[in-house]
Amino acid sequence: MTTAHSPVSDRQRRVEDELVQAVLASFDDTPDPRLKEVMRSLTRHLHSFIREVRLTEAEWQYAIDFLTAAGRITTDHRQEFILLSDVLGTSMQTVNVNHEAAGHVTEATVLGPFFVAGAPVIPLGGDMAFGAPGEPCWVEGTVTDTDGDPVPGARLEVWEADEDGLYDVQRDDGRLAGRAHLYTDDQGGFTFWGLTPTPYPIPHDGPVGRLLGGTGRSPLRASHLHFMVTAPNMRTLITHIFVEGDRLLDSDAVFGVKESLVKRFAPQALDTPTPDGRDLSGRTWSRVRFDIVLTPSDALPAPGADTHALRA
Amino acid sequence: MTTAHSPVSDRQRRVEDELVQAVLASFDDTPDPRLKEVMRSLTRHLHSFIREVRLTEAEWQYAIDFLTAAGRITTDHRQEFILLSDVLGTSMQTVNVNHEAAGHVTEATVLGPFFVAGAPVIPLGGDMAFGAPGEPCWVEGTVTDTDGDPVPGARLEVWEADEDGLYDVQRDDGRLAGRAHLYTDDQGGFTFWGLTPTPYPIPHDGPVGRLLGGTGRSPLRASHLHFMVTAPNMRTLITHIFVEGDRLLDSDAVFGVKESLVKRFAPQALDTPTPDGRDLSGRTWSRVRFDIVLTPSDALPAPGADTHALRA
Ligand SMILES: [Fe+2]
Ligand SMILES: [Fe+2]
Repeated sequence: MTTAHSPVSDRQRRVEDELVQAVLASFDDTPDPRLKEVMRSLTRHLHSFIREVRLTEAEWQYAIDFLTAAGRITTDHRQEFILLSDVLGTSMQTVNVNHEAAGHVTEATVLGPFFVAGAPVIPLGGDMAFGAPGEPCWVEGTVTDTDGDPVPGARLEVWEADEDGLYDVQRDDGRLAGRAHLYTDDQGGFTFWGLTPTPYPIPHDGPVGRLLGGTGRSPLRASHLHFMVTAPNMRTLITHIFVEGDRLLDSDAVFGVKESLVKRFAPQALDTPTPDGRDLSGRTWSRVRFDIVLTPSDALPAPGADTHALRA
Repeated sequence: MTTAHSPVSDRQRRVEDELVQAVLASFDDTPDPRLKEVMRSLTRHLHSFIREVRLTEAEWQYAIDFLTAAGRITTDHRQEFILLSDVLGTSMQTVNVNHEAAGHVTEATVLGPFFVAGAPVIPLGGDMAFGAPGEPCWVEGTVTDTDGDPVPGARLEVWEADEDGLYDVQRDDGRLAGRAHLYTDDQGGFTFWGLTPTPYPIPHDGPVGRLLGGTGRSPLRASHLHFMVTAPNMRTLITHIFVEGDRLLDSDAVFGVKESLVKRFAPQALDTPTPDGRDLSGRTWSRVRFDIVLTPSDALPAPGADTHALRA
């Protein structure tokens, strides 16, 4: 399925090589060695891409127009460049690079564009749905360190889409629902009511949506519930849990699924008594367990914390 | 000057490889084989970049913020994404890939962001400055095909910055100056008055300017005069001519200089008679010759023409 390109002459290869070298040399006086390294690597890979596919000028113009359209649709509540990075898997690859799996430390996945700082606090056992429509889900678990010792007072930010496939911020009516924060108890335990996660499409009415359409890809994300877990001297964990059996686990639009994060959301039949006595008569509900293991923060700033600070 | 990265474990390498493979596979159902090829190549090179530099999450966020700021400053008259492509040499590499040097065909260079369709026509010998400040420059030459036969009636679009370093469109007052089009005569000849080119900075009050500043690079372009030459059955030529002896020839901010395009702009002493009798008493002027060789258009659409059509 690859287009055949005519072979590149030695003379032409030299012309193209010389340009790459000139661009690399233009960064010679960069005071910060890390910026220099990043710009040189970016230059080499972008030029390799253009040369490899023999990018046409019309395609280059298409790319300019694509980025321009992405800029135009981006607002405080819509981040098309993050969506682009997400669907190219570059957001997830950045997470991978910065969160090497180690032992049984809970794995990280993408933050996504729907985190909002300052969601309300709920007590243990409280309901983070705040009226968002969907099937209730009892979530319970613990936060421990790598020695298995509990982490009391860990802060959990939790957020998710409702059964209409929307986050509160996508409704543009100022409502706050489907997000909260809570703290673990003395034994590192936590419980709360959320919603059984359902699939939802990433926003696909912009250039990224057109890219997905043009490449025969679905905008649907595998069903998930977001967590951000912070605790003193621990590395911030940004992750999701996914739903065992979800047909989208292998085709998540942003490549966020990790096997260790797929959990059993056990369906509860009508009139099954709830753990905390909440009256759900006439409704089904589900329950899931998520035991979280944090790793100590090292001398380096936690990239997760950085991201949070920059985004807020 | 390269940052030392700790070696990547086999397990970690496998995790990162598997993600790349998953993203590549997501394009398997792309109906258009060319789009599939381009997206797969882009994926591979972007992921290689992220993995090679071990991009941090703060750096990823910086990139998102950079693109967002580029989108915000872009308007109908300011194209930050083209500037970004220009300073990374990717615009010029795209030109290279599409305009392989052949024989003595005139070489192409970048279009730049300041071309405007519909500039006024001038007669042979006319003045394209339209009052733009600068030293007058007599430009003369021919347009021929690769057999040396003249191309009569070829259309030349010419445009340039004034001695203040500004294109008319940058003055935001609706003026039209320093741009025109004209046609070759029966022998393929052309003459016109322009301005002796002077260096100018690309717009550097946005994110691209900050990138140049942070990497110790100058925003200055080598002095040049733009040409776009079209003729029936000939491939559209988009190019510049540069000024012999210009100190910026080796450090052009957008890497547009090609040796074959550097011309002698011969300085003319005070009171040297002009070729057409124009009264320039009390002023210096210069003259330059530019003989243009066009190549026949082949079955493929001329990428230059495409670009023009998409941009207009
Ligand atoms: Fe989400
Ligand atoms: Fe220019």
